[in-house]
Amino acid sequence: MSQFESFKDVVDQYKVIFFDAFGVLKNSNGLIPGIEKTFAYLKETKKEFYVLTNDASRSPEALAQSYHKLEMYDIVPECIISSGMLAREYLQLKVSHGTVAYLGTEKSAHYIETAGLKTLSIRELDLNDIDEVNALVFLDDEGFDWNTDLNKTVNLLRRRNIPVIVANTDNTYPVSKNQIAIAIGGVAKMIETIVGKQFMRFGKPDAQMFIFAYEHINSYPAVGRKDILMVGDTLHTDILGGNKFGLDTALVLTGNTLADDVEVRVRSTGIIPTYICESAVIEV
Amino acid sequence: MSQFESFKDVVDQYKVIFFDAFGVLKNSNGLIPGIEKTFAYLKETKKEFYVLTNDASRSPEALAQSYHKLEMYDIVPECIISSGMLAREYLQLKVSHGTVAYLGTEKSAHYIETAGLKTLSIRELDLNDIDEVNALVFLDDEGFDWNTDLNKTVNLLRRRNIPVIVANTDNTYPVSKNQIAIAIGGVAKMIETIVGKQFMRFGKPDAQMFIFAYEHINSYPAVGRKDILMVGDTLHTDILGGNKFGLDTALVLTGNTLADDVEVRVRSTGIIPTYICESAVIEV
Amino acid sequence: MSQFESFKDVVDQYKVIFFDAFGVLKNSNGLIPGIEKTFAYLKETKKEFYVLTNDASRSPEALAQSYHKLEMYDIVPECIISSGMLAREYLQLKVSHGTVAYLGTEKSAHYIETAGLKTLSIRELDLNDIDEVNALVFLDDEGFDWNTDLNKTVNLLRRRNIPVIVANTDNTYPVSKNQIAIAIGGVAKMIETIVGKQFMRFGKPDAQMFIFAYEHINSYPAVGRKDILMVGDTLHTDILGGNKFGLDTALVLTGNTLADDVEVRVRSTGIIPTYICESAVIEV
Amino acid sequence: MSQFESFKDVVDQYKVIFFDAFGVLKNSNGLIPGIEKTFAYLKETKKEFYVLTNDASRSPEALAQSYHKLEMYDIVPECIISSGMLAREYLQLKVSHGTVAYLGTEKSAHYIETAGLKTLSIRELDLNDIDEVNALVFLDDEGFDWNTDLNKTVNLLRRRNIPVIVANTDNTYPVSKNQIAIAIGGVAKMIETIVGKQFMRFGKPDAQMFIFAYEHINSYPAVGRKDILMVGDTLHTDILGGNKFGLDTALVLTGNTLADDVEVRVRSTGIIPTYICESAVIEV
Repeated sequence: MSQFESFKDVVDQYKVIFFDAFGVLKNSNGLIPGIEKTFAYLKETKKEFYVLTNDASRSPEALAQSYHKLEMYDIVPECIISSGMLAREYLQLKVSHGTVAYLGTEKSAHYIETAGLKTLSIRELDLNDIDEVNALVFLDDEGFDWNTDLNKTVNLLRRRNIPVIVANTDNTYPVSKNQIAIAIGGVAKMIETIVGKQFMRFGKPDAQMFIFAYEHINSYPAVGRKDILMVGDTLHTDILGGNKFGLDTALVLTGNTLADDVEVRVRSTGIIPTYICESAVIEV
Repeated sequence: MSQFESFKDVVDQYKVIFFDAFGVLKNSNGLIPGIEKTFAYLKETKKEFYVLTNDASRSPEALAQSYHKLEMYDIVPECIISSGMLAREYLQLKVSHGTVAYLGTEKSAHYIETAGLKTLSIRELDLNDIDEVNALVFLDDEGFDWNTDLNKTVNLLRRRNIPVIVANTDNTYPVSKNQIAIAIGGVAKMIETIVGKQFMRFGKPDAQMFIFAYEHINSYPAVGRKDILMVGDTLHTDILGGNKFGLDTALVLTGNTLADDVEVRVRSTGIIPTYICESAVIEV
Repeated sequence: MSQFESFKDVVDQYKVIFFDAFGVLKNSNGLIPGIEKTFAYLKETKKEFYVLTNDASRSPEALAQSYHKLEMYDIVPECIISSGMLAREYLQLKVSHGTVAYLGTEKSAHYIETAGLKTLSIRELDLNDIDEVNALVFLDDEGFDWNTDLNKTVNLLRRRNIPVIVANTDNTYPVSKNQIAIAIGGVAKMIETIVGKQFMRFGKPDAQMFIFAYEHINSYPAVGRKDILMVGDTLHTDILGGNKFGLDTALVLTGNTLADDVEVRVRSTGIIPTYICESAVIEV
Repeated sequence: MSQFESFKDVVDQYKVIFFDAFGVLKNSNGLIPGIEKTFAYLKETKKEFYVLTNDASRSPEALAQSYHKLEMYDIVPECIISSGMLAREYLQLKVSHGTVAYLGTEKSAHYIETAGLKTLSIRELDLNDIDEVNALVFLDDEGFDWNTDLNKTVNLLRRRNIPVIVANTDNTYPVSKNQIAIAIGGVAKMIETIVGKQFMRFGKPDAQMFIFAYEHINSYPAVGRKDILMVGDTLHTDILGGNKFGLDTALVLTGNTLADDVEVRVRSTGIIPTYICESAVIEV
């Protein structure tokens, strides 16, 4: 018997569910065991759901593919909201021409190309030919040399005063049960400190990620914020962002926050979820 | 002849104008001379406008009154978007019962009362009777004793793990040509550092302020972000926030940023306005 | 039987002991019970000792008096090293003439007067007559009005580019078992953020405090750093500062760090004491 | 005719001169033209001098060699004080056995080897065999892979709670007239943010660097702090650190701070040099 609330009882009170991905739906071993039952229940009860992820390394199509490979077919591209989509929206609205330089793989450059802009990997950038570079985007931690190309980035930003977009606000991500890696968000913070300029960050906990998801739900604006539940494993992104946007929030203990210290962490951070549940699995 | 762009030529390209208040429409001496002509022009050309202000010390009605006293009658309560309104929205969505303690004058408590909640000035709060206090809001720098009541605030937050809302993100505000005062946003930052908890800030440059204004415009959602211009005197709030939300931005030089060092500051911060204009006055 | 080390066994390995005051020798109820036995033992074994305190509110003489009132006569002015003494040293070396403005009580101004400089309480300062003010010192949280006088401080620092000294690096201090108060160090940090200038901080964990104490020991330089033990209750000041200066360090659990979470805190901060002891009491 | 003070007139008032290296004695093109005349004058007038440098990439011997190659023979190993020497002192006092892992070239490992400890390049470190690793030192930005090895560093620090030493506090260094590179100090700051632990930094502006130099001067302690001049090109390291340690300071305009904006920068930072001189060259 648990001291925590039943996720099913919680979900029953809402019409739309926003899920974080890593630590909620999957972890480094694959899907969270039993999570497919949750999606069967959502389908049966006709609840809408969206996956909100600070991931700009791949397109929503490629992200959905990664779930299909794990035999989870309910997550389709249309229900994925990635921070990369916010970066694309910014570029479409604010950068009308020229070249956009980026740190990331070719796959991540998808978000710039679909904004109708020319892309240039930082790896290919020549510091003597930068007059056409009108923006810089941090997309993914792969696809460039961390030494040569980060130094190149610093020098580019000293010479060209251009908007800098960070399409992933996380510092790290897990690569296996015991190992983490530095995410592009952590790298971007170092470069920001060094050049002393203000970058623009897209992703949870920023309100823009939640309003973007809110505007994308099918039933918008018939559904109010009171009808939406945000489910996440991380206090500083999922719960803080959901709370501030006015959503009810459920913290699950299958990722960054463990049952042992959930109480201490809620108290020490002052970030208070509406509910705490062992996992997002609904046993039916 | 000016090296800067004509504000009229800029305004002509947009359907809706968002204005910052202090340093754009008024300063410590009263209205910016000639600004009434801008509002005559907006009326004549049937452009919508809104005033976005990081001010939670008074209701929109009281803020509008302050313009009427200066014989500027075009600014009515309906076109004022204050950070206090965001704080109220948060309280309505997330705090359903109990008492909300606040730092500020009785006038500023308006934002809590209209959310249907019981209010309690930090001055009246008894640390032995805090079980009913379910949130704390920083509203205004007046209405409490900075020594006794700030110490009381720290001890309240050590004992009660409750959401803390900061309804004004500014550090300082001008009180005369040569003098500034510490704003409640600056005080809140000190308390946040001391208690080590995460507060929730509402106001520019946060996206939520712009979303809130965007959803309040009459013509929403027929008008897109491309049709809105944000006008402000401060790079770190008005321009950064407007840019990140995808709006075009006009920096005016009648407040925090002066003609002499505008170039240096744009370059050193990396916050780049779409336009730079001497003032928001339209000569007709 | 304890999992922690015997303080006597630890002390036996060193020739000179540096003690933090609050949380080690005394707390809000008075002396730590039994601490007088430690000083009897130090006398008997002819070990030198010093009290290193981030306190600039009173002179070493007045600080020693406060121990004598508690019937602890071994702590004489000569063995007290306060952060106020460092501030005085700075003033003597770097400010040769004019007036030094201060935030604090008249008692705290002792440190400026004994540097041979004219003092001026921020309360008496007239913003129209500041040409003679050549430095500003934060000494104590009492003796001025937190609203009027902090605003006056901000305006002073906008008009006069003068060195600012913070003679107490702590954010808070305990006033009773369950209550804390904001220390002048916390107030100074707010003002520093607001004016955007670099203040000079004196006190633990800064190396200068340890150097100053080191140079004051009677047996200097015959005694090496290897012969000195720093004893404190706070990881971020006593232990971090002691470690960095090359001293061995003993964390005691009678103040800020409790037996329950000492392990978690050492792990999460990465600040590693050489020893952990229940208290600084030596049972003989 | 210059508005700045004559460096010769300034030097004449002191017995010992502390010099920063880069931007004062040399730049990316080699020696500052005419600087050899300054050292001839110091020899003639029998003034002691030391070079204080935030550089742990090479031993003092190798650093002196680099000046000899530029035909400047007055700078011998004995007058070089590097931040690497402070790191070595820390290791000697606080790490008695086991292996010290490091980020840097083999040449930089000199500072660990001469402390009598076993060294292990982060490149060679195997995360499955870390029980003997008792400290980690950031020495130089070369000698490791920034991607693989920085991720390895993060995982090492999550598993082993060991002291972390940063032997260079700079964020960047110049590599040519128009290009800079990220220094190991900037890299260390990113890792510190990511792992959330407290690192120990050695180098200017920290007082420890100045006390270390002070204790190394031949005439110590006969010479007081009033007799020492610190000469540097950077407000935040050379001038801030020198001031705080109680030394008089001379800012020279041949490096990071340019004649054009020296006034603005002194005013905006509140870091006030005793003197401002065009360069450290003495025309005789």
